[in-house]
Amino acid sequence: MPIVTVQVTREGTTPGRNSVSAEEKAAIIKGVSEVLLNVLHKPLESTYVVIEEVDLDNWGWGGLPTAQYRTLRAAAAKS
Amino acid sequence: MPIVTVQVTREGTTPGRNSVSAEEKAAIIKGVSEVLLNVLHKPLESTYVVIEEVDLDNWGWGGLPTAQYRTLRAAAAKS
Amino acid sequence: MPIVTVQVTREGTTPGRNSVSAEEKAAIIKGVSEVLLNVLHKPLESTYVVIEEVDLDNWGWGGLPTAQYRTLRAAAAKS
Amino acid sequence: MPIVTVQVTREGTTPGRNSVSAEEKAAIIKGVSEVLLNVLHKPLESTYVVIEEVDLDNWGWGGLPTAQYRTLRAAAAKS
Amino acid sequence: MPIVTVQVTREGTTPGRNSVSAEEKAAIIKGVSEVLLNVLHKPLESTYVVIEEVDLDNWGWGGLPTAQYRTLRAAAAKS
Amino acid sequence: MPIVTVQVTREGTTPGRNSVSAEEKAAIIKGVSEVLLNVLHKPLESTYVVIEEVDLDNWGWGGLPTAQYRTLRAAAAKS
Repeated sequence: MPIVTVQVTREGTTPGRNSVSAEEKAAIIKGVSEVLLNVLHKPLESTYVVIEEVDLDNWGWGGLPTAQYRTLRAAAAKS
Repeated sequence: MPIVTVQVTREGTTPGRNSVSAEEKAAIIKGVSEVLLNVLHKPLESTYVVIEEVDLDNWGWGGLPTAQYRTLRAAAAKS
Repeated sequence: MPIVTVQVTREGTTPGRNSVSAEEKAAIIKGVSEVLLNVLHKPLESTYVVIEEVDLDNWGWGGLPTAQYRTLRAAAAKS
Repeated sequence: MPIVTVQVTREGTTPGRNSVSAEEKAAIIKGVSEVLLNVLHKPLESTYVVIEEVDLDNWGWGGLPTAQYRTLRAAAAKS
Repeated sequence: MPIVTVQVTREGTTPGRNSVSAEEKAAIIKGVSEVLLNVLHKPLESTYVVIEEVDLDNWGWGGLPTAQYRTLRAAAAKS
Repeated sequence: MPIVTVQVTREGTTPGRNSVSAEEKAAIIKGVSEVLLNVLHKPLESTYVVIEEVDLDNWGWGGLPTAQYRTLRAAAAKS
């Protein structure tokens, strides 16, 4: 009877896309449901998966909004 | 001091609607707050209720996005 | 396919008890599941309810741990 | 490795705005991350902050949608 | 930067055990982290996984505590 | 009317302790409530804070249980 909640930033995996695609969501749902089936023998039909897409402004990391933190890290990696 | 979080799919209860209506939300808030009042004697003003509507694509069941799983179950029920 | 999460402080409703009883939990589960059935026509078997009991030390209100905030409010109510 | 989730109503702090601004979000992220650094010595880069803005209709208080409850309290305060 | 929360009932997968084992938890963590890596190209080190074990009394299904609901379904399946 | 949820690993900040102390919890509650007061002008008495302590086994990072991942990183840092 598991519930799996997946929180990710709302952005694309390729240029020109700015959200997770329906195919990617389906793959996440399939993948995590199968993990629960394989590890704990939970039947697929008893697992709920909820995907929450979070705007970049609303996700903080390193004390900063994510976009700023990534810029900072990229700069640090170059120096 | 309870917090009740209600996660439901974003869809209508009648044809032509595609989300939970404001009246339905108010009825959910009233209903679950009264459950906490009746069972645990929690005053209404100390209960917070948060309703989260989840897009059908973002809700998985049976290892599939919900719409696909429902189609599958409906087909199985007929056969 | 709703998921209802109920967070309450871990304490009893009568003297001598320090947690929510199994009967009270069953009543909460029944009550909130019926709200979803009545308002959104969600079948009982598609609703999951998760009750989370939170230690008093771990619940903050008014900028203070709950026990301290209650003492403060009780004192203010008397003065 | 903390995760801090901040749920607030989606509304502005000044007239003419109806959501939390990017600057306010950045200040929340900075503020709560520093609390975890100062109190538990968690490095900033190990803390994730997720801000969830909840529509007023979807937030219940006092058994009512928030806007109605506020109106009620304001009226009670005047009488 | 995903966060994956896995909620399961606190019970064993084999007789004589009454919780999820450390090995099973490690397999869940590995499995769901790899799903995010494979589908969304999220590096393993940016994914947090939180496993929440929920007592059977605290998990409701079909309007009942889980143990009662399972008994009911098992009886219905036999009749 | 904010709700702030703080998830941290259950471990001590000094040798010989294996959980967050009551004083540290009080400081977290005070700190995050004040952030909401200062940034969004939310009165302290309208903010709920819930602290969830998560066992190290139940927290995954880098595709591994946290303790294993930390050992790995410490070894990598030395080499």
